[in-house]
Amino acid sequence: MIVILKQNPKEAQVERLLSWLKDQGFDTHISVGKQQTIIGLIGDTTQVDIDLIRSLDAVEDVRRVTEPYKNANRKFHPRDTVVEVGKAGVKIGGGNFQIIAGPCSVESREQIITVAKAVKASGATILRGGAFKPRTSPYAFQGLHAEGIELLLEAKKETGLPIVSEIMDGAHLPLFEEVDMIQVGARNMQNFELLRLLGTLRKPILLKRGLANTLEELLMSAEYIMAGGNEDVILCERGIRTFETATRNTLDISAIPVLHRLTHLPVIVDPSHATGESWLVDPLAAAAAAVGADGLIIEVHNDPIHALCDGAQSVTPEAFDRIAKHVQTLLPFASHEEEGGE
Amino acid sequence: MIVILKQNPKEAQVERLLSWLKDQGFDTHISVGKQQTIIGLIGDTTQVDIDLIRSLDAVEDVRRVTEPYKNANRKFHPRDTVVEVGKAGVKIGGGNFQIIAGPCSVESREQIITVAKAVKASGATILRGGAFKPRTSPYAFQGLHAEGIELLLEAKKETGLPIVSEIMDGAHLPLFEEVDMIQVGARNMQNFELLRLLGTLRKPILLKRGLANTLEELLMSAEYIMAGGNEDVILCERGIRTFETATRNTLDISAIPVLHRLTHLPVIVDPSHATGESWLVDPLAAAAAAVGADGLIIEVHNDPIHALCDGAQSVTPEAFDRIAKHVQTLLPFASHEEEGGE
Amino acid sequence: MIVILKQNPKEAQVERLLSWLKDQGFDTHISVGKQQTIIGLIGDTTQVDIDLIRSLDAVEDVRRVTEPYKNANRKFHPRDTVVEVGKAGVKIGGGNFQIIAGPCSVESREQIITVAKAVKASGATILRGGAFKPRTSPYAFQGLHAEGIELLLEAKKETGLPIVSEIMDGAHLPLFEEVDMIQVGARNMQNFELLRLLGTLRKPILLKRGLANTLEELLMSAEYIMAGGNEDVILCERGIRTFETATRNTLDISAIPVLHRLTHLPVIVDPSHATGESWLVDPLAAAAAAVGADGLIIEVHNDPIHALCDGAQSVTPEAFDRIAKHVQTLLPFASHEEEGGE
Amino acid sequence: MIVILKQNPKEAQVERLLSWLKDQGFDTHISVGKQQTIIGLIGDTTQVDIDLIRSLDAVEDVRRVTEPYKNANRKFHPRDTVVEVGKAGVKIGGGNFQIIAGPCSVESREQIITVAKAVKASGATILRGGAFKPRTSPYAFQGLHAEGIELLLEAKKETGLPIVSEIMDGAHLPLFEEVDMIQVGARNMQNFELLRLLGTLRKPILLKRGLANTLEELLMSAEYIMAGGNEDVILCERGIRTFETATRNTLDISAIPVLHRLTHLPVIVDPSHATGESWLVDPLAAAAAAVGADGLIIEVHNDPIHALCDGAQSVTPEAFDRIAKHVQTLLPFASHEEEGGE
Repeated sequence: MIVILKQNPKEAQVERLLSWLKDQGFDTHISVGKQQTIIGLIGDTTQVDIDLIRSLDAVEDVRRVTEPYKNANRKFHPRDTVVEVGKAGVKIGGGNFQIIAGPCSVESREQIITVAKAVKASGATILRGGAFKPRTSPYAFQGLHAEGIELLLEAKKETGLPIVSEIMDGAHLPLFEEVDMIQVGARNMQNFELLRLLGTLRKPILLKRGLANTLEELLMSAEYIMAGGNEDVILCERGIRTFETATRNTLDISAIPVLHRLTHLPVIVDPSHATGESWLVDPLAAAAAAVGADGLIIEVHNDPIHALCDGAQSVTPEAFDRIAKHVQTLLPFASHEEEGGE
Repeated sequence: MIVILKQNPKEAQVERLLSWLKDQGFDTHISVGKQQTIIGLIGDTTQVDIDLIRSLDAVEDVRRVTEPYKNANRKFHPRDTVVEVGKAGVKIGGGNFQIIAGPCSVESREQIITVAKAVKASGATILRGGAFKPRTSPYAFQGLHAEGIELLLEAKKETGLPIVSEIMDGAHLPLFEEVDMIQVGARNMQNFELLRLLGTLRKPILLKRGLANTLEELLMSAEYIMAGGNEDVILCERGIRTFETATRNTLDISAIPVLHRLTHLPVIVDPSHATGESWLVDPLAAAAAAVGADGLIIEVHNDPIHALCDGAQSVTPEAFDRIAKHVQTLLPFASHEEEGGE
Repeated sequence: MIVILKQNPKEAQVERLLSWLKDQGFDTHISVGKQQTIIGLIGDTTQVDIDLIRSLDAVEDVRRVTEPYKNANRKFHPRDTVVEVGKAGVKIGGGNFQIIAGPCSVESREQIITVAKAVKASGATILRGGAFKPRTSPYAFQGLHAEGIELLLEAKKETGLPIVSEIMDGAHLPLFEEVDMIQVGARNMQNFELLRLLGTLRKPILLKRGLANTLEELLMSAEYIMAGGNEDVILCERGIRTFETATRNTLDISAIPVLHRLTHLPVIVDPSHATGESWLVDPLAAAAAAVGADGLIIEVHNDPIHALCDGAQSVTPEAFDRIAKHVQTLLPFASHEEEGGE
Repeated sequence: MIVILKQNPKEAQVERLLSWLKDQGFDTHISVGKQQTIIGLIGDTTQVDIDLIRSLDAVEDVRRVTEPYKNANRKFHPRDTVVEVGKAGVKIGGGNFQIIAGPCSVESREQIITVAKAVKASGATILRGGAFKPRTSPYAFQGLHAEGIELLLEAKKETGLPIVSEIMDGAHLPLFEEVDMIQVGARNMQNFELLRLLGTLRKPILLKRGLANTLEELLMSAEYIMAGGNEDVILCERGIRTFETATRNTLDISAIPVLHRLTHLPVIVDPSHATGESWLVDPLAAAAAAVGADGLIIEVHNDPIHALCDGAQSVTPEAFDRIAKHVQTLLPFASHEEEGGE
């Protein structure tokens, strides 16, 4: 960490600062330039409050040199993490590409089982389905809750596919006992109490990037889970909020290679939520595969007109079949380990 | 709501659409233009899933004409809501301007009581203090939790100031029994389960705008609370995330008059978090007062160097005294009712 | 176009509005809803000033139903435009994929000819090179100007590759006489005087999207050129400005399929400028090919350490050769005409 | 400037880097940390290509410590610049607050003279009026050009007010001979050829911030003008592009105090363009005055329904009179010199 001092700092202030930094356990080295004096901090700065130091009288600015995350950092774990989902151990990461598919919301026994069978036949290896739905409006359909989880478990039994579903509140955790992977939605990416709780589990967590969160913040949220001992975190890029309104969100395709360089965790892409348009799912799934994502999560619905939420972004099973086949032609056959090694 | 059809739609599709819309309870009127055919929906469209309709085959786009919120909408409640905080009934809104002040985190009995007395002497009428702190890093100080609430209650007893503190999880609600106003932080603005729970209380809620949430989304989150019967919601602008990095966030000063036009709820400003720099608190507090905010929430700390979080944005009690006096000279003396009436 | 009136508008105001709209040459039809009254405008609204109508007393809001661009609109020109560059007629668009490559700046005869030969050998079909460089700092290298163009022309002669170079001011146009395609940089995307001038030429224009411009604005700028009679416009996505700072800009990969739906013009991608990092060029070029772009423009330099500008984003000829081969494996073999037909 | 090396860099690479930096004229000092090795550069780094150094093999990142602008930097010019406009020498900056007002476009002799007289009577001291109008659509009204300038000069003669008008192309400069201040619009903020040309004049330049430009970029554009010897630059905040769509742009109110700290140049605010809504001009003008702006530029039109552009954001002379009076009550009475001195 580098502390940049104001021009012509008072000597007493600098003394006080150096002694305070020493108290915090840092070795310091100071270099005096023509226009600027700089203090370098040596030691573990992960826990330093950068804003506090910036607020001190003699300080003009502070810059981190090392990342504030450890468990998620590829520098300390150069090998790709491979996450195994469900009893069958479906592998994601380290060269293993998987497609997660299923309806936005679980609506009925027939619906979820029909879709589950269809997506399995097309090559999906994990079933998704929402039982708790975060909706902007309190008047919109919010999911079947416990009943939705029950129906998902039936579809799992019927097809053998492991399942993933979104949690919205720690209090609902007991309902997720048999859910194979728990999803944290974009709006809860910084619900730190929830992340902390999920860190105590030994079950994969699918962590979606918040609409306006940086990659560093995403990795810090993964760090919350990993700091609790749960190392099976899968990151998911699902579009960010920008000035552009032609699509609902802007898929940040660069995030995939950048994350692969910064972290050893698997990174998948959600092309359905990224844009909110079903006709864009195919080209964006293709781009995600070509750019090196470790998987996709795609909304599939057998009857879009009756889908109770997010109908616009769901594809039919037929369209999904074409997309899955298209994606297979584009996959590279390599891990990302060398990328972080540069 | 207006449904714009694709060019040259098939008659059968249009028939099916009209009949489906009728099933949903809408009256429709259709107008055929040279390039475009449009269907207008008449009826309460608050609960319509706009994305679903947009996904239908014959549809090119859908536009809302009325806002999707009701309880928070000034059109249906032209008079300013005046929220009363605490037993003493400190009024916010409808021409009543209040300054909420206190430390970022409650750290010790001495600290909170010293600050409370100081800010009261300078004109603050509500005491703020964090017991549960949302921190990006799992390794940063997270607040004193139950003990922090206890200390706040002591400061309340000592000074008579009502208190406001942030909740991060519904499970902590019992600790907030005697807290006069509960704050929902920016990161939890769309934690819908928490909002729903707070809607069951009869206690003011201070709802902060999320870093990347639109004003409409803020109002929809207020609507979640109000739909549960709790109408005492105060909105807070605290800066949004933009491309500019010269300040931590960009204070959206226009949000205050725009919100006053859209809603009857009080709107206050947090100049401390908006930019993350203590020297900007004074000019931004001045701008907020001049633009017509109903109050301010300002971080004050008696010893910034030891503040355990957000030190950079805290002002000293002396600086706060100057700011409070400055702000008083800028206040307009009017309600916002006429603004919404246009 | 739809005009939404304020609640309970005064009859006289509505009369006046209707008569004014009629004076402007529109047929109108009015529909009175429970909460809202709406006027539909029938006729060519391309030239209507939407802001003006929105400002009228009785009006709450105005929404366009049709796009404000005509020449660039796929609705009126369903077939893909194929642009031919140079005498040899290198085709871009309509299923023709091309790679444009070359150094950021032209620096010397030896440099440009060496790079030109190398990229041609690897499959590039058009040579790029900057003679006029827009630099944020007045103290940075600004290009060789006329001499740079001369050197480019020599490289063209030597290799037979058509050339593209950026123009920064209409006054420099005489220097571009023999340049095969003229580039408008991101910062000049809304330099309307320049666009108008380029519209008078009969030479392909490579129009880069501005850092913070919407796709509609990009199409309106293309419309400026096309309105002058020059229909050979190639659009280029090169990254937009967002809150994320991990990459210099955020490549908006969705822009490619969205533009293909809205317009018949070819769309290429610049993966070099999008992120400013040379190691990201390969994955982003792959994503662009997979998503359906009509070409790429890539910075290549034979000696990055001496590149006078944008060194960080330039790849070496060896790296370019690998990228060009990688991209070839990912190309789809179709035009985009059907996409716009939906 | 600080160069952060990659982990465990090869010694030969570091040697090569140090020798290259020395060749560029820098003194260097190197400090080896546990996780990271850092090189500090001593000397004038204004002209260093930060991207180039970042691209070198051994380098992980580079951070500037000093600002890349000199002439505009308050560190080297602590006193406020006071710009004098016109023969009468209307002063802006250093405690001198001025209101610039007038129509968006000059439309007729009668219009411009009527408005000029009205705004002068209400306290405006400089007249604005557009003769060249940058419009997104090639089909929209683009201004009266030379005739518009003529009419402005007549209004100047009639009222004695100095005038400001926007230039869109260097080729039009001869028409601006008698214009007292030349405006560079937001879309041309990085039209570097135009800036360079304006740097050769001895006439005040009103430089508007681009829609998506950082404050540092704004100062670099001012630096382009100042590097040519023209030191009379006035900066103008006019709203930035963000995700929020409730207003056309988001006025960045913090920009005013931040710019006052970074530069000695005057900073004014355009509340008309910032939001595109005339009813927001009053509250935002109030906020701008309270936050410490050196002036305002406000669109005023005597007949909004016939305004040929930007009607929605124009206020009537009556509304302007109220706004001007309101603003006067909010002005602080101080220069900004002490702010930059911290």
